[in-house]
Amino acid sequence: MLIVGESINSSRKEINSAVGERDAAFIKELAQKQVDAGAHYLDVNCGTKVFNEPETMVWLVETILEQVQIPLCIDSPNPKAIAAALPLLKNCQPMINSITAEKKRFQDILPLVLEYRTKIVALCMDDSGMPETSSDRLKVAEGLVKELTAAGVKHDDIYLDPLVKPVSTSDKAGIEVLETIRSIKQMFPEVHLICGLSNVSYGLPNRQILNQTFMIQTMTMGMDSYILDVLDRKMMGFIFASQALLGEDEFCMNYLMAHRNGLYD
Amino acid sequence: MLIVGESINSSRKEINSAVGERDAAFIKELAQKQVDAGAHYLDVNCGTKVFNEPETMVWLVETILEQVQIPLCIDSPNPKAIAAALPLLKNCQPMINSITAEKKRFQDILPLVLEYRTKIVALCMDDSGMPETSSDRLKVAEGLVKELTAAGVKHDDIYLDPLVKPVSTSDKAGIEVLETIRSIKQMFPEVHLICGLSNVSYGLPNRQILNQTFMIQTMTMGMDSYILDVLDRKMMGFIFASQALLGEDEFCMNYLMAHRNGLYD
Repeated sequence: MLIVGESINSSRKEINSAVGERDAAFIKELAQKQVDAGAHYLDVNCGTKVFNEPETMVWLVETILEQVQIPLCIDSPNPKAIAAALPLLKNCQPMINSITAEKKRFQDILPLVLEYRTKIVALCMDDSGMPETSSDRLKVAEGLVKELTAAGVKHDDIYLDPLVKPVSTSDKAGIEVLETIRSIKQMFPEVHLICGLSNVSYGLPNRQILNQTFMIQTMTMGMDSYILDVLDRKMMGFIFASQALLGEDEFCMNYLMAHRNGLYD
Repeated sequence: MLIVGESINSSRKEINSAVGERDAAFIKELAQKQVDAGAHYLDVNCGTKVFNEPETMVWLVETILEQVQIPLCIDSPNPKAIAAALPLLKNCQPMINSITAEKKRFQDILPLVLEYRTKIVALCMDDSGMPETSSDRLKVAEGLVKELTAAGVKHDDIYLDPLVKPVSTSDKAGIEVLETIRSIKQMFPEVHLICGLSNVSYGLPNRQILNQTFMIQTMTMGMDSYILDVLDRKMMGFIFASQALLGEDEFCMNYLMAHRNGLYD
């Protein structure tokens, strides 16, 4: 299980301000909190800073690394921002979020994956747009895995994102993703599956309940990585509960540790 | 989805007292509450009344039916108690909980299933005891479905219970059940799967979290019926959330109705 803390993302208002004002203390505190809450990677996204994204990304990465020793997930479609950040990440294997099967994006991002031997989040979309059905997603996924491995990327470094869409706009949005996970795990057992959860609940009330439920459902089907709000204690509680019930927690030790640490209070 | 309200069970202290004192008002209120909370069937169990179970069962059934028009699930291993209750259930198809592949129990219960054309909960155990692995369970399940259908029971009336054991005593207890569900759904797509949830969390803290998580996991694998505490609002909330995400709730209408009725407040 790999958990990427999603919070350092300038699309959130208070992060956008903190980044704009170069408020290092704020960023460091948020990084530390996420590490304390159990994040294995921290996502870093400053996509709203369109005029100086590479420079902002460098500031963010340096600021975070002054506080915590944890691998980072460089979250940008902009190869210049990614290229600026990667040389700073020497101690742990970085992750890039993300590549797609869109021709130009694939060509732009692949060299960075290879040069820095990163983990890579691969979104199941191509130049024809967002996939609808499970079999659409599977076709794109198959192409991505084949092209990435042909270029020298290991299965274990690939994190396929099946692209989660809201159930409020299509009843089948959830089940299509669940079926995609099952098929990908059968086809490529060593490739990882990752997603952001919150899209699924867009437009509906009680989003946290839906996000927690979808995390449990996707993990049951074989998803093993999430980009999520690690500061959501209930979500983290359900992750430990899920692992215990899926036989991925010997003697329920992590679950009991989480309990003793007050996660369920 | 079929939800059986579990609350009228004399193994619970306050029910045992109410039944002992023939407190009809208490039983009626509990029946009404469960119907209001969304139960499709009510389980009726007075197994602690070993000296007069048939007579007690008759009193319970008559008392409940004076209050609510809902099908009942007669929960007893005692064919005399079941035989006493079934003639009272004329308006809706009753359910018997349960038959097993144990020779004597199968022979005792089967005639009642056939005479009253009931739905039947079939526990995946035989004379060799409780199964350990998924393939042990599958073998017993296959035998049960074959013998029941050979006797004239329809697939749609069979509710296989894979037998849930605590993860506190075996790490694999949860995953073995999940794999059993997948296999049974492949082998017998029209047969239903049912379970009680609470065994899974026996011996661990925060049992409700584990029970809710295991409900979501089992439903993801294809379980479609539960014997549970319908008065647990969080559990019911997760059921509606799960159905919406599994594409079993057109336009999320039931989920939104549950929201408007304050289930998530």
